[in-house]
Order: sequence, then structure tokens, then C-alpha cells
Amino acid sequence: MTDHTHRTSYTDRTDQLVLNAFVYPEGHHEAAWRHPATTPERLLDPEYFVDIAGTAERGRLDAIFFADSPAVTGNVELRPGAGFEPLTLLSAIAARTEHIGLVATASTTYNDPYTLARAFASLDLISGGRAGWNIVTTVADVASANFGLTGHPSAEERYARATEFVEAVVALWDSFEEDALLVDPVAGRWADPSRVHPADYRGRYVSTQGPLNVPRSLQGHPVLVQAGSSNAGRALGGRFAEAIFTAHQRLEDAVDFAADIRARAVAAGRSEKDVKILPGLSPFIAATQKEAKELEAGFTELINPAFNLPTLNGLFDLDFTEDDLDTVIPLSAVRATGQTLDNNHSRSQVVAGIIERERPTVRQLLGRLAGARGHRVFTGTPVQVADTIEDWFRAGAADGFNIMPPYYPGGLEVFVDEVVPILQERGLFRTEYPGTTLRSSYGLDVPENRWTVQRAGKAGRVPA
Amino acid sequence: MTDHTHRTSYTDRTDQLVLNAFVYPEGHHEAAWRHPATTPERLLDPEYFVDIAGTAERGRLDAIFFADSPAVTGNVELRPGAGFEPLTLLSAIAARTEHIGLVATASTTYNDPYTLARAFASLDLISGGRAGWNIVTTVADVASANFGLTGHPSAEERYARATEFVEAVVALWDSFEEDALLVDPVAGRWADPSRVHPADYRGRYVSTQGPLNVPRSLQGHPVLVQAGSSNAGRALGGRFAEAIFTAHQRLEDAVDFAADIRARAVAAGRSEKDVKILPGLSPFIAATQKEAKELEAGFTELINPAFNLPTLNGLFDLDFTEDDLDTVIPLSAVRATGQTLDNNHSRSQVVAGIIERERPTVRQLLGRLAGARGHRVFTGTPVQVADTIEDWFRAGAADGFNIMPPYYPGGLEVFVDEVVPILQERGLFRTEYPGTTLRSSYGLDVPENRWTVQRAGKAGRVPA
Repeated sequence: MTDHTHRTSYTDRTDQLVLNAFVYPEGHHEAAWRHPATTPERLLDPEYFVDIAGTAERGRLDAIFFADSPAVTGNVELRPGAGFEPLTLLSAIAARTEHIGLVATASTTYNDPYTLARAFASLDLISGGRAGWNIVTTVADVASANFGLTGHPSAEERYARATEFVEAVVALWDSFEEDALLVDPVAGRWADPSRVHPADYRGRYVSTQGPLNVPRSLQGHPVLVQAGSSNAGRALGGRFAEAIFTAHQRLEDAVDFAADIRARAVAAGRSEKDVKILPGLSPFIAATQKEAKELEAGFTELINPAFNLPTLNGLFDLDFTEDDLDTVIPLSAVRATGQTLDNNHSRSQVVAGIIERERPTVRQLLGRLAGARGHRVFTGTPVQVADTIEDWFRAGAADGFNIMPPYYPGGLEVFVDEVVPILQERGLFRTEYPGTTLRSSYGLDVPENRWTVQRAGKAGRVPA
Repeated sequence: MTDHTHRTSYTDRTDQLVLNAFVYPEGHHEAAWRHPATTPERLLDPEYFVDIAGTAERGRLDAIFFADSPAVTGNVELRPGAGFEPLTLLSAIAARTEHIGLVATASTTYNDPYTLARAFASLDLISGGRAGWNIVTTVADVASANFGLTGHPSAEERYARATEFVEAVVALWDSFEEDALLVDPVAGRWADPSRVHPADYRGRYVSTQGPLNVPRSLQGHPVLVQAGSSNAGRALGGRFAEAIFTAHQRLEDAVDFAADIRARAVAAGRSEKDVKILPGLSPFIAATQKEAKELEAGFTELINPAFNLPTLNGLFDLDFTEDDLDTVIPLSAVRATGQTLDNNHSRSQVVAGIIERERPTVRQLLGRLAGARGHRVFTGTPVQVADTIEDWFRAGAADGFNIMPPYYPGGLEVFVDEVVPILQERGLFRTEYPGTTLRSSYGLDVPENRWTVQRAGKAGRVPA
């Protein structure tokens, strides 16, 4: 799968890193909210998130990013599991920041294209062109009951709908051409109707007429982000995604994945540069490696195995109890469900890899997963964190990273204050924002409007 | 219909006015954006709306309110007709204000209860308890095509769904009891699961399981607002609405309407004080009545009849063209469609009344409607505006008003600077906010959570 001609070309790449702060309210470590470094009493205070965004902006990071599910998905007794809806929260943050990108997750299974296209376009206008949409099909099957459905659609059906959904949303975002607004009060003409178009999208799963009632933003439309690593997820990502969030424990896996995505993008008529590949990285950072290990241990000892045991059991259809914590997980358990993994739970492939390589006990695996749910946890000094970022970047495994601080706000602050300056000194990361939009930070082009392209009869990429 | 025992009791009422600023981006007058007093180049600038909210807050107004339709509904060539989505815009405004209430319109026909309940609950948390939801069923039939439907549901079906939808949303808002959050990091317990409840709502039109993944706000849940004046609309309003937006040209009609709504609220087991009745008022304000008339005339002369002629024709199934502008509208045209008005277009009853009383030409009627789409336009000095507000308030026709400035931002500024101080001197309006939530401004109770009531076995109103 790996195309090694790609790897060599990345050793002297001249572009710079993309760095997002992936905001999990109290931090990505499962027990973060129990640690004295966090402030769980502030998790329902919007100013807490404004402060986090301000820290990310101080570090010149590209974006803050929020995951989402339209349901209570975890055990709210044992971990914070209810709070703000991302689009409204990011709109509030937009009003208090100037440069930071604002990426929200939203489901194609449990939304209408018109409503979703409109909300993201509005956030994009409010923020002056800093919005991004992380396209997900929603894995949590409990969500279906919140929408009056008797069952969660299959992965195949979810991805078929997602493909249409994204086509419909992008079509709606093209409703107003760049020059559609005349704003001529003397002539009494606000818009040029020949520059406002219906989407007229008719699919099997979704249909929408349009036009959307939001004009285009400074960056054209929100950046399309995608995070599924199954075959169906990769197909969607290769075709549409301008940034890909992914989870890899090992450099070689990340290189393979990145090469595959780039090949798919090229096959879809796009350029390798049109898609930014961003693995997750959850760093415990301290002055010495010993202190960093101690920092991590302080979080690990606060884990309650009861929290993640159901998740682990669900991932592989197991039935471990708290009596089994010191049992080594048998390989048979993982392999038996291997054939169903590809479409349904790409994350479980990462976990299966850990089980096969490390042969952990249940307790040990829960400790591993507590870090960042299968994303890569790294423990070290600021220089070591900068080193691994540079290594993966130069190997072509990553165009940047989703930084997943194990604890907020301190875990982001230490990254911004200690790691970012090293990356800046090495010329790998900006010292000032290149512009005001998320596309300008990511180094992505403003997408051409299909109608403008069509009318001009000029060559150019027409959004799907 | 009028219960005159109510009218007498209102002459010495001791409560104070509710005053909302109804924000139509450039102003409510159809031609406002063409007038030099407005800034149409700022309509897509979020700071413009932050400034308007600041003006409303400076005047100690209760709330700003945005109408909405999930479609392009007007002629965007002739009048601004695309821009921000209200929930995202109000979230941004929330981050820059402290007291002003934030009321957004959203459709029960073209949303899911879980998504809508969640977005409003999130706005309510973001704003510290300042959110309100204006419940509409969406009149614009073009919206249906944006959601892949072959037709707009009938008014009967829309209201049947709306009733279930509101029940479902309120049930979702009760998911977390007030004391559900323990936030005890030492014990490792974030929430008390016995205080978190599914909504488990099963209707004919909508069903949702829950629990909602947003805890309750400082004001319990968003204020429920309703604006339909048809029989079905009044039934919904009498049962659920805590504020009612309505359109009346004449005091006696407004008194009748208010008495009817109060009677319906009481019949639904609520108190008269549980529902604030707020007619629209669109004031042209100047130092003398002559100057106010001239101000209005300056807007009227900028009207383009082509803009509203289709609306007028649609309201009564007519086919006037621009050649008919000086034709007096025949009464037969209005009466022929009278029997269909009640359910479908309560606003057309108001317009029919104008036609019957004033016998206008097409041009004259278009001029009347250009003011505020059937809402009451008032032209006068600050004292005269204050007088009519006091008259309606003391007559029991209104608990306050939706102020609909004909032009923004100046039309709101003159109201805040010239009219509000008179109302304050008369003891009719606050000089400081009584609290920080919209409920505290409106004088509404925090609703009890049904589960708390049930467990305590205590008497009290349980939300439907």
C-alpha cells in the first residue's frame, strides 16, 4: 500500500505543520476531571472554552476542534458527559477570537443537509471564514432512538447517505456566487438573481432544493474534515476531505494510511496538497522524561475500570467484568471479530493492534485506552514531543497533528508555551497567522463556485 | 370574547412592561435598506448585530428577537434576503452581552426535537439563562423542497406535529434535574444517574428517547414563545407559550386577543401571569409629529411595488399587476377567501381588516404593508409613542411590546434614547435589570422539573 516515492519527497518538504487543539472539555485522559490539574467546575462555563481558544490562538494553532455525538454516550456518573453543542459554542468563541479555526463535528445520519449547511455557513460568516465541518456518520447506535428511529442504520447505509449528504451540502454552499451581492441601495438591487442558484439535489437518501439562505464567506465555504478510517470512510475522505483526523500508534501505519489517502485524493482528481492528514497526539509533557512519566501515572491511578470496560467489551463483543482486570486478553477474542471491523469500527483495528503487539491484561489495556481512546499517547520533554512531531511530518506520515491534551487547560498551555516555540525555531511552524481564514492557515485554496466556473467556461475544479 | 372584568383590573397594574427589540436586519420597513439612515453594507457583519444588542441592553430591554424561515422566501434582488442563522448568531451575541434576552425562531415542521432542544439548551447555557424559542410551524411552503419533501404539510398537520414537538422538547429539557450534577472528583462521581432521565416521548409525528446531553441552565430551560394567531396557534400558545408575539392594528382587537389567550392559559391550568402578550409596534419617532410623518414618507417613497405585490396577491389569491396600483381593492376579493383564513394565514385577517376599514388602492395598501408586514406602524413624538404604549398596557391589551424599528440601527437608538426614559420616569419600565436571566426580566418563574416534582410528590405545575 505504501508508495515509498512519497516518503522520500517529504524529507525536505517546505510547507509547515498544521496543528489543531482537539478540545475534550476536561482533557482526553479518561480520569482528567478527577485530577487536581483540571477544573471540572468550569466545564459548563463558556468562558472556560473562550480561554482555551485564546491559548490556542496565542500559540498560533490552526484550529480548535470539537467531537460530537447527538446522544448521551458514556456513563455520566463516572465522567462528564453532557454540555455544550459545538456549533453554538463555536459561534460564541468566534465572537471572542480573531484567527483560530473553529471545527465542529456533525452527523450526516442525524441531520438534514439544509439545516447543517446553513448552520456551518452561518458560523463561517460569523467567524470571518474560520469554520470547518468534521463529517461523521455517528457510530453510537443509541443516537437513533433520539431521532425516533427503531434502529441505527448499517455502516454501508450510513456512508451511502453521507456521500449524498456532502454532495448536497456543498451544492447548497454554492448557492450564492462570490459576486452575487450587489448591495446597491440607489438602484434598489441587493442581489443579482442570475448569481443565486438552487442546489436542486436529488439523491436516494437526501434531496434539497435550495438556494441556501446564507451567502458565501471569505473562505468560500467551511473546510471539509473527515475522520473515519474504514474503507468507506477513506473513500469519502479521499473524495471530499480537506483535512483528515486519524489515529495511529505507529509511524509505519501512519505512513501507509497517508499514502493511501493521498492516492485516493489523486484518483479523485485532486492534488496531494488538497488534503491535510492529521493524526492524533496526546502528549504528557514535563521537564524530564521521568517527570512526564510521573505526570501520566498520576492520571492513570485515577482511572475507574468500570467506565471503559463496557466500551472495550462492546468493541470486540466480549464480556469481561471487574473480576477479570488481571486477565491477559486472548488473541482469539480480537480475531473472531476481525472480519466485521473494516466497515463498522475502524478504531477497533487500532485497539486490536495494541492487543496483538503488547498482550496486555484487561487493566493494562484500559489504562492504555484511558489516555486518548486509541490515539497515540506520548510521554516526554518538550524537545522529545517536538522531535516526534518532526519525525512523523518529515516521513510523510502527517501534515500536522490533532493535539489532544490529556488534561485541559494546563495540557494545552504547556504545549503552546514549551513545544510550539521549538517547532517555530526549527522553521516547522508559523510565528504569525498568514491570514484570517482557516483555509489560509491550513494552506488550502478557496474552492471555486461551480456556477462561476460553468458560466466562465473556464477550466478548474468544480466541487462535486 | 372580551372579558371586561379583566380590562378594569389592568388600569392599576403594578407590574412593568416587557420590551423586546425585534431585529429585522436592516429594519422592518420594506425599503429600509435603501434609506441613507441604514448601513446595508454591514448586514453580513456580525459586529453590526453585536452593536444592536448592545443598544438594546443599554436601554434595559428584555430581549432581542429574530424571525426565521429555513428558505429564501423573498425576492433577494429587491431586498436583503440571506444572512445569518439565528441560533449561531445569538450564540455569538451571547458572548458579547450580559443581560439581554436572546430569542430565536425555529420551525417545528423542519427540525428534529432532539437537535432543536439541544441547540436552544446550549444557547441557554452559553448565555447564562437568556434563551427563548419562538415556536413556528413555518408558513412558507417553499421550505418543504429544501427538506426533500414533495409538499408543505397542511396547517392542521403542522400544528398537530407542533404540539407533539413542543411536548418532546420540554421533556428533553427535563432530562437533567437541577441537582443532577455532583461534580465530585474525589469520589469520582460527576452526575447522579438517578437524577438523569430519558424523555421517552412517543408521538404520532415525533418520537425521542433521550436523555438530552445538555444539563439545565440557570433559568431551567429556554422561554417558550409563540406567534401564531389562528385558532390552532392560539390553542398551542394558551397551553405552552410564556410569551406571545402578535399583530394588531386596533386596541379593541388587541384587548379581545389578550383576553382570549389569558382565558386559554387559565383553562390549561396556568395563570394569566404565566403568559406575556406582546403586540408588534413599529414606531417612526421624531421631535414633532410633522417630522415623524416626513421621516416615514422618506421611507415610503423608496418602496418598489414589485417586491410586495406577489405577497399581497398570494394572501388573497389575487392577480394584481403593476398596472393596477391605483385600483381600489374590491371587498369581494377579501371576503371570498375569508373562510380559509383562520387556519392558514392569521396575518391575512389583519390585512383584510385594513382593506375593509380603509378601502385603499393597491399602492396605498402596499405602502401600509411595507411598514411592518401587517404590524402596527405608529408615527409620532417620543411622548406620543410612550403614551400609546401606556394606553395599551393599562387597557390589558399588552404586557409589553415587540418593538419593530422601521430602520436599524437608528430606529432602535432613538427608541432607547428618547422613549425608554419616559417609560422609566412613569414607573412603567425598569432602570436596572432585576437579574441575569430572560425569565427574571420577563417576570416568569423557573419551570419545575417534572422528575423533581414527581419524586418529591409535591403539588406543582408539571410541564406538559
